[in-house]
Amino acid sequence: MANINENYLSLKQSYLFSEIAKRVSTFTVANPDKKIIRLGIGDVTKPLPNCVITAMHKATDEMANEKTFKGYGPEQGYDFLKETISEHYKEKNVNLDLDEIFVSDGAKSDTGNIGDIFDKDNIVLVTDPVYPVYIDTNMMAGRQIKLLDCNEQNGFTPAPPNFKGDIIYLCSPNNPTGSVMTKPQLQEWVDYANKNGSVILFDAAYEAFISDENLPKSIYEIEGAKNCAIEFCSFSKTAGFTGTRCAYTIVPKTLMRKTKLGENISLNSLWNRRQATKFNGVPYIVQRGATAVYSQQGKKETKEIIAYYMQNAKIISDTLKSLGITYFGGVNAPYIWLKCPQGFSSWGFFDYLLNNIYVVGTPGSGFGKNGEGYFRLTAFGSRENTIEATKRIAKLLGK
Amino acid sequence: MANINENYLSLKQSYLFSEIAKRVSTFTVANPDKKIIRLGIGDVTKPLPNCVITAMHKATDEMANEKTFKGYGPEQGYDFLKETISEHYKEKNVNLDLDEIFVSDGAKSDTGNIGDIFDKDNIVLVTDPVYPVYIDTNMMAGRQIKLLDCNEQNGFTPAPPNFKGDIIYLCSPNNPTGSVMTKPQLQEWVDYANKNGSVILFDAAYEAFISDENLPKSIYEIEGAKNCAIEFCSFSKTAGFTGTRCAYTIVPKTLMRKTKLGENISLNSLWNRRQATKFNGVPYIVQRGATAVYSQQGKKETKEIIAYYMQNAKIISDTLKSLGITYFGGVNAPYIWLKCPQGFSSWGFFDYLLNNIYVVGTPGSGFGKNGEGYFRLTAFGSRENTIEATKRIAKLLGK
Repeated sequence: MANINENYLSLKQSYLFSEIAKRVSTFTVANPDKKIIRLGIGDVTKPLPNCVITAMHKATDEMANEKTFKGYGPEQGYDFLKETISEHYKEKNVNLDLDEIFVSDGAKSDTGNIGDIFDKDNIVLVTDPVYPVYIDTNMMAGRQIKLLDCNEQNGFTPAPPNFKGDIIYLCSPNNPTGSVMTKPQLQEWVDYANKNGSVILFDAAYEAFISDENLPKSIYEIEGAKNCAIEFCSFSKTAGFTGTRCAYTIVPKTLMRKTKLGENISLNSLWNRRQATKFNGVPYIVQRGATAVYSQQGKKETKEIIAYYMQNAKIISDTLKSLGITYFGGVNAPYIWLKCPQGFSSWGFFDYLLNNIYVVGTPGSGFGKNGEGYFRLTAFGSRENTIEATKRIAKLLGK
Repeated sequence: MANINENYLSLKQSYLFSEIAKRVSTFTVANPDKKIIRLGIGDVTKPLPNCVITAMHKATDEMANEKTFKGYGPEQGYDFLKETISEHYKEKNVNLDLDEIFVSDGAKSDTGNIGDIFDKDNIVLVTDPVYPVYIDTNMMAGRQIKLLDCNEQNGFTPAPPNFKGDIIYLCSPNNPTGSVMTKPQLQEWVDYANKNGSVILFDAAYEAFISDENLPKSIYEIEGAKNCAIEFCSFSKTAGFTGTRCAYTIVPKTLMRKTKLGENISLNSLWNRRQATKFNGVPYIVQRGATAVYSQQGKKETKEIIAYYMQNAKIISDTLKSLGITYFGGVNAPYIWLKCPQGFSSWGFFDYLLNNIYVVGTPGSGFGKNGEGYFRLTAFGSRENTIEATKRIAKLLGK
């Protein structure tokens, strides 16, 4: 008889965003006339940049003509896109070979699928609170997970622990807390990983929101990181690709780990084999669109989009400040992590906002036990909605 | 220390198509003036149908406008696409609920990733010869694989064995042999699976090439299949989506398996959880393009494309027949599986064709030991190239 993967049964039944969708739907059915504003799920609202649209139209036309039609592309992505990614890294003083870059359909897919190249018997360190995908995918694989407490005391950025971890997920700028790791903080982790032979899985999906030049946008800005870290990055939040799907993963060729018999194995070659076997590349049209993101025009347009969202973040932050509500993030990161006022629990505050002012945020407790009593708002709404939502919040919570 | 998944080390270093690419590249460097014709890898050459191009342009424009922009879509695919897929199945007298359909980026991804929901301790049955992905992905997961001999005696279509298998990969129309399973043959497998509690993973990626009305295009045309089978289908070969990436997987809600403690678990819910956690859906633009494939106009256009390819298959078959070369397939399937003449081995014949007439095919031995002495040609070339290649073959091998 076919046996199922019983690790799935240990997963919580309801994924955070499904539960939110359910409560919103219940409210909407009961109150069809109320205008709901969503500042919860991290989806973007600005359309794709013009240069991306132009590039995708052009690529679509190529697909209509036998002479320019593209069938299977390289599973790892086309060189034209990988070259622009490599140029993007040069701006951070990081040099990458093209075969260290793997284009994919999403950082979510990759941060989950990367587990394929690791043994079941690894201890996985994740922060608490955390993006749920890191935990769920490792639970599916049956790995032991240890949580690193993040709290106001450590600025939601944990230092390496005094015990060993084999695989470490770090996300900076952080989802959900909006905290950003400094170079010295990241150096501590790289040193810890190199000392223990751990591998850091660094989620840099929000790097484009960093404006402070002293903060690292890539883990490879840190000495020694190419010997211990895999980095994930995405066009989703940078250029509005949440519904267009393009991301990339960097696996340095210098990142080696030993087999149980002591043979040195390149993680780059393992990931290459995984992708060549289980993936068939990103649509040609999408890769052309993504390439435009890193063009001169694309950089200009995405810079404007990011400035727009960060202005939203400022509007939200200013409102919270004026209300005397403690919050984190909102600078160098599109997430605002606030402490629920009036002693509300996370879901209590969720229901309070939904039922009274029809504003939807994300309960912090959905990201882990240390998220209890916190609440995530995002800068990805429209200006109009952000202003309207903050007005409603000010009216509800103001004296 | 991070431990790698050492199952990867058991995989053969060189993936079949990489080895072909290497030999072709070596030849091209040495003989830059020779015009190579590729009838090897199963990539298509006809451009996307007009209605797909129109739909994708329209969808691209939607992405340019804040009011019509699409961010994250459902991980399982948009209803508008799932509805057309459901209609497509109705034509085969198969009724599907929309939540039994999971849109994805490729049948290759899905036939590999589906392993996530099964335990390591399953015995996997695959045919020999076989599409390598089924074997490689299960070797990566550390599963035991048993091979089912396919040969001229059984028409390259094995009957169920007298031992038990838990997970069974079947592909019909078959890649690489071009064999197509009949309803009685498939019924035997469904009965075997229902008797043993096995799960059949049915790869129907080439169903559109079946013109014989008596042959099953979906395993769900077979009594009892909804209790034991998952089906994979794709737009790649039907509508030229190899570089555009869209496919779908059917997991019936009636497909249940027991845990070790006897609890009934729905595989549909497991796959749903897998996709929601490790996948973020197919690009909106691509889903709009795929939806056009199953429109009235799309059906007309794809029918013409398939007729074109099947005419290529006839040209190849007729040539082989006139040369007295034994072959299989080429009817209801885009693959022609020929017995290498003159006692050539598969790779020997590959080199013979490449070096003498610059025609590239696929060595049968790359698909398994029973493929030794066979060679795969495909109908996916252009008419001009197919004619030119068969002329060269006739000249080289004719008396």
